[in-house]
Amino acid sequence: MKEYKEIQVALLGLGTVGLGVYKVLQMQKEEMQHKIGTEIKIKKILVRNLEKAAGKIEDASVLTDSWQEIVNDDEIQIVIEVMGGMEPARTYIMEAMQAGKQVVTANKDLIAADGKELMDQAKKSGCDLLFEAAVAGAIPIIRPLKQCLAGNHLSEIMGIVNGTTNFILTKMAQDGMEFEEALALATELGYAEADPTADIEGLDAGRKVAIMASIAFNSRVTFDDVYTEGITKITASDIRYAKETGSVIKLLGVARNTPEGIEVRVHPMLIPERHPLASVNDSFNAVFVHGDAVDDAMFYGRGAGELPTASAVVGDIFDIARNLQYECCGRISCTCYKQLPIKAMDDICSKYFLRMLVENEPGVLAAVTAVFGDRKVSIEQIIQKKKIGELAEIVVITEKVKERHVKDSLKAFEEMTAVKKVSSVIRVYGE
Amino acid sequence: MKEYKEIQVALLGLGTVGLGVYKVLQMQKEEMQHKIGTEIKIKKILVRNLEKAAGKIEDASVLTDSWQEIVNDDEIQIVIEVMGGMEPARTYIMEAMQAGKQVVTANKDLIAADGKELMDQAKKSGCDLLFEAAVAGAIPIIRPLKQCLAGNHLSEIMGIVNGTTNFILTKMAQDGMEFEEALALATELGYAEADPTADIEGLDAGRKVAIMASIAFNSRVTFDDVYTEGITKITASDIRYAKETGSVIKLLGVARNTPEGIEVRVHPMLIPERHPLASVNDSFNAVFVHGDAVDDAMFYGRGAGELPTASAVVGDIFDIARNLQYECCGRISCTCYKQLPIKAMDDICSKYFLRMLVENEPGVLAAVTAVFGDRKVSIEQIIQKKKIGELAEIVVITEKVKERHVKDSLKAFEEMTAVKKVSSVIRVYGE
Repeated sequence: MKEYKEIQVALLGLGTVGLGVYKVLQMQKEEMQHKIGTEIKIKKILVRNLEKAAGKIEDASVLTDSWQEIVNDDEIQIVIEVMGGMEPARTYIMEAMQAGKQVVTANKDLIAADGKELMDQAKKSGCDLLFEAAVAGAIPIIRPLKQCLAGNHLSEIMGIVNGTTNFILTKMAQDGMEFEEALALATELGYAEADPTADIEGLDAGRKVAIMASIAFNSRVTFDDVYTEGITKITASDIRYAKETGSVIKLLGVARNTPEGIEVRVHPMLIPERHPLASVNDSFNAVFVHGDAVDDAMFYGRGAGELPTASAVVGDIFDIARNLQYECCGRISCTCYKQLPIKAMDDICSKYFLRMLVENEPGVLAAVTAVFGDRKVSIEQIIQKKKIGELAEIVVITEKVKERHVKDSLKAFEEMTAVKKVSSVIRVYGE
Repeated sequence: MKEYKEIQVALLGLGTVGLGVYKVLQMQKEEMQHKIGTEIKIKKILVRNLEKAAGKIEDASVLTDSWQEIVNDDEIQIVIEVMGGMEPARTYIMEAMQAGKQVVTANKDLIAADGKELMDQAKKSGCDLLFEAAVAGAIPIIRPLKQCLAGNHLSEIMGIVNGTTNFILTKMAQDGMEFEEALALATELGYAEADPTADIEGLDAGRKVAIMASIAFNSRVTFDDVYTEGITKITASDIRYAKETGSVIKLLGVARNTPEGIEVRVHPMLIPERHPLASVNDSFNAVFVHGDAVDDAMFYGRGAGELPTASAVVGDIFDIARNLQYECCGRISCTCYKQLPIKAMDDICSKYFLRMLVENEPGVLAAVTAVFGDRKVSIEQIIQKKKIGELAEIVVITEKVKERHVKDSLKAFEEMTAVKKVSSVIRVYGE
């Protein structure tokens, strides 16, 4: 065992998360010595704009705009990357590990794309590369998956892992807002970024589900493997109709380990109101897990925000501080020891909710059901909702069918004059 | 780093949990080498009845009824105590640690009562004493509290940590059953033991909340410190009335870290339907946590059962296997470095729901409210529910008031002829 009066660290970035980490470490100043047997001291903070950053913290002398000053400083033992984005974050993390430093990162983009290379380097350097904050912010999920649930074959992960879209869908459900209105509110309240694409198109959620799937199924899944579909087409009507069937609509990241390969996707989904994920509202996140021993489990909390994200980062820093003292860094490394195939989206089976505008004439329903039937799509329910002039709106809920067969049916409807429009195609959770 | 072809362990007990651990280790046989770099081999299983146990497993040659055979076997590196109860479990765990072995236990009775002595010995022996399964079964909660959330001042823990009572309350709420009927069903389905006292009187939940409070607030809380009140007095009417106010009734373990000391108690409570704990039904458990950085978080899953509990135990075993290889056992030891006082139950503030039977005459309501008023109990709502002959049933919901003032009021009602009965006194969550 090695004793340290203090452990010196460097923070890369002083944005929302960086400032959060700075604050939480201050809030824990009196506790650290007791909790982890040493003190964490921020020796350097890397920023782009020294002047702007100086206004944010008490002691501006720790600020630097030179990475070399950090990577070449042998006293700095932990590098905390909270700058985000691919480069230069990737290079800095690689160089930090090559220099024998431990790394904490909150960077989901990077881990979801280059997790393998980074973990390989961590192994080579015998160092820790922890990233609890990269998935679902404050929610403990990486450590539970890697350690607490290690005695499981995990078969399913399902998560609400994007707070912006969950806030939007909650507003649409609770206040009857349309998507655009709810998005405007999210922007106004600071839940959505100026360019909300990564959130509303499901890309952010896709990165998180790739990381979780890799850990849960012990096989590398990258962001490129993930099918993503956002919530821009969801309407207040869809949500109302879903409610009539006892369901809510959520943007879910779904990963399943099946005998034919890993399914990994992000899309809106109808889930029953009684499902634990259904009551996860506003900007909260939650991850639902199923395994052969644990059965069902769920982890719920804040998916983003200054202090919540810092909570996860500081948990990782404290853990590394213990590892440094016990000289056991690298104790938990990459757990992707399998090479499972990724299942093509066309081969995935799901139930579907479809909303269609058809001519209100005898024989049209029969023609629609025939199209489905000819393409192996069994129908569970078909409901005529309302008449709009000469047209009728119908809602179809299918049995569990292959994605490709639904696509084939949709293609056929395009050719049918009696079908004016297929307004919504949303997957439905369940057997 | 030390290499092990295999790590030999001993299982103490082959009841439900013991057999679960045996099975889960078999289920993980192909995975272990990859996950933890070695194999876990059960060398001995301690049982009382060799013959009975022989029928449960394939290779009966590992069975023994001699503890000495285990504790004196230097090849056995981890002792897994899943026999339960205070003695001889306590002695075995102490002796195992003194002999330099690592310990995993699922024994909440023991940790809640003698946690300090056991953790002290673990520290002295420099060994691991892990007990993830002791609280809330399969749900990862000990590791998240000790590691992931270490960067927080946690101020509140609230949990549904007893599956039997949650099943009973769910049946009462969903099917309108009375307590006795729901208990009978729980017994029939195997959710309740032959003697259900520890569950229905809140003792089991009390042990779990003592353990969680100790870790969350970094100050030792033992079972003796916990106020416990069970669910035997809850009626279907209480649940119905609660529903009218938008609440459900749950048996909650509550621990709060306040400037005046630690509050720690188990009792039924009305919580709003929109609270994440409200939708935790059947035999599921959940633990809700609040901290200064993480904000709100919740952990949900199976609180008991053969494989779920084994999931937690095996997670601990795998963790120790890593520690043995990295020679860092004892890395996370006792985290109770404060000595905070326990707040007396009389001084705790809460809102209250009271159901009373009073004479249906002019002036009675005024007299009742005067009794409350004279004893500093402010009333938020008073509702006349129904008339029963000469009597009227009223429901009173108080503001947040001191427990002692409610007790004083109840004493005064005993002397009042106009008050025939106070049928229910249930605490209410909220400010």
